[in-house]
Amino acid sequence: MPVSRASELVDRALAAAGVPPDNAALQRDLLLDAEMRGIASHGLLRLPRLVERIGNGVADPLTRGQHEWTAPGFLKVDGEQGLGPVVAQAAIDALLDRAATQGVAVAAIANSNHIGMLGFYADRVAEAGRCLIAFSTSEALVHPWGGRRAMIGTNPIAIGLPTGDGIFMMDTATSIVSMGEIHDHADRGTPIPLGWALDGDGNPTTDAAAARSGAIAPFGGPKGYALGLAFELMLTALAGSSIGREVKGTLDSTKRCTKADLFIVIDQPLAPVAAFVEMLRQETPAEGFDHVRIPGERGRDLRRRALADGINIADVTWSRLQDLAAPASIIED
Amino acid sequence: MPVSRASELVDRALAAAGVPPDNAALQRDLLLDAEMRGIASHGLLRLPRLVERIGNGVADPLTRGQHEWTAPGFLKVDGEQGLGPVVAQAAIDALLDRAATQGVAVAAIANSNHIGMLGFYADRVAEAGRCLIAFSTSEALVHPWGGRRAMIGTNPIAIGLPTGDGIFMMDTATSIVSMGEIHDHADRGTPIPLGWALDGDGNPTTDAAAARSGAIAPFGGPKGYALGLAFELMLTALAGSSIGREVKGTLDSTKRCTKADLFIVIDQPLAPVAAFVEMLRQETPAEGFDHVRIPGERGRDLRRRALADGINIADVTWSRLQDLAAPASIIED
Repeated sequence: MPVSRASELVDRALAAAGVPPDNAALQRDLLLDAEMRGIASHGLLRLPRLVERIGNGVADPLTRGQHEWTAPGFLKVDGEQGLGPVVAQAAIDALLDRAATQGVAVAAIANSNHIGMLGFYADRVAEAGRCLIAFSTSEALVHPWGGRRAMIGTNPIAIGLPTGDGIFMMDTATSIVSMGEIHDHADRGTPIPLGWALDGDGNPTTDAAAARSGAIAPFGGPKGYALGLAFELMLTALAGSSIGREVKGTLDSTKRCTKADLFIVIDQPLAPVAAFVEMLRQETPAEGFDHVRIPGERGRDLRRRALADGINIADVTWSRLQDLAAPASIIED
Repeated sequence: MPVSRASELVDRALAAAGVPPDNAALQRDLLLDAEMRGIASHGLLRLPRLVERIGNGVADPLTRGQHEWTAPGFLKVDGEQGLGPVVAQAAIDALLDRAATQGVAVAAIANSNHIGMLGFYADRVAEAGRCLIAFSTSEALVHPWGGRRAMIGTNPIAIGLPTGDGIFMMDTATSIVSMGEIHDHADRGTPIPLGWALDGDGNPTTDAAAARSGAIAPFGGPKGYALGLAFELMLTALAGSSIGREVKGTLDSTKRCTKADLFIVIDQPLAPVAAFVEMLRQETPAEGFDHVRIPGERGRDLRRRALADGINIADVTWSRLQDLAAPASIIED
């Protein structure tokens, strides 16, 4: 279906949940952006749970968060249980403004809802001509290296910057796959590769269903684990949020969200690096590859195609969205 | 041998090369720290090449770099071909001072020599009660994902922060192994695991000797590649340094060093996270592990042992150091 049709339905669903238009537009853009880039796990399927969270009082559709500049370059944000992208974008707007004079500005955010795909923000800041390093924590889904159970988040990092001829953006979790992908394999009854996950007893498994109650591996073994743990410690220490298995509210619909986000905006003249990216793209590909990959490009290609040709939304998600957009009370009129 | 004996020899070698005592002490501490932590590739074996670089006029033993604050929070450093740790520590000292009032301060460094193990700096900043995120680029040794030849650096990242009861420090390259480890396998005639490297024709190899003229893999496949590339683009753009195969001077003794370094110091109240690190340490280990790993701890244990029991230095390195500490002109007296 055309992206505009999905967009309209999301707007109606958010309006019905009491989200004012500006805030709804950000939440919609974030979810649609993920959907268009082929990251369905961060797309529209998140909306029903978000609406439930608003209904349950653990997501506030109105607030943009409380800002406190604890130093000229450091912004502490109490998200006041606001919508993730609303609180995040308000913080980033403040950082963009501050970094223009300071050169750099950092925001640590606690108490906001799931902020979705970090690349969304990295893309926007890069388009605005600045450099962004973004981090976020999540509920404990990943096992420490040498451990048996989920103790740390999937803790993604994204980096965006203008290249002089467009932008570069990368966005990756520190887990080897997302829990969404594990669920996807379980739903389709297909096995997962050994090394992706442990089962509920902490033993390696190829059974996706068993992995759902277990733990995902960090990407790249001890190195990815070290990164994910460092991000979790740093974000928790700076934001004063929860840590490890105490982090809640990114996957359920009833608990206050206690993860942390961290944004670093740098506003400085940047030497152009587009020629190097182009050189990489032109490299002779290795056996089994049709071209050398550039991070972020597949997502941008998919988004371009989605805007031209429309998107496929899972039937179950679409039908849930229609229910949300036309609540019983209105239908009964 | 006792660390003090190695330390003394390094001091004499650096003095003979014309390095003033303060600068020599930093360079010595950096190399000895790596040696004690078991990272021989970043240890004393680097010293002979550094002395050659000083002799060849591509390493200046005197300068601490030129500082320009382009904004209250952003320091641009022209390393003036100074010694890596001397230029780096001068920049970090300036950042620590600035971050005390600004909350955050960033330095981008071009034109300095190899800064060694990033964890050295992360450790020191964490011990000083602040948070450091450190990056560096290197000569092109790593192939892009889906590529055939070395195009990007091993581009490490380190993060250090106080935990409320000690410090946390992690330091990892974005390559799957170091080129030092490849050389080590080649020297011992042992094969390398498939997936570590490509040969000079861009094909996967288990022959360490063939890998020396090839390319190392990024760690964790496309994710580690995305990180390493993002770091290289961001550092190059901010420091105005060289990129990709144009980066020189970290492995040879004749070319000006054209890599970049980036330091972010955050000075803010930090919530304590030591209890969580301790909880991880106490987790039930997985099959094949005797305990859950905490990044940085093995290096700290080795250093403690080295300080108590001394270090083993390869004969060839020790004999080179003795030559450097007692130059021919002095022996002939």
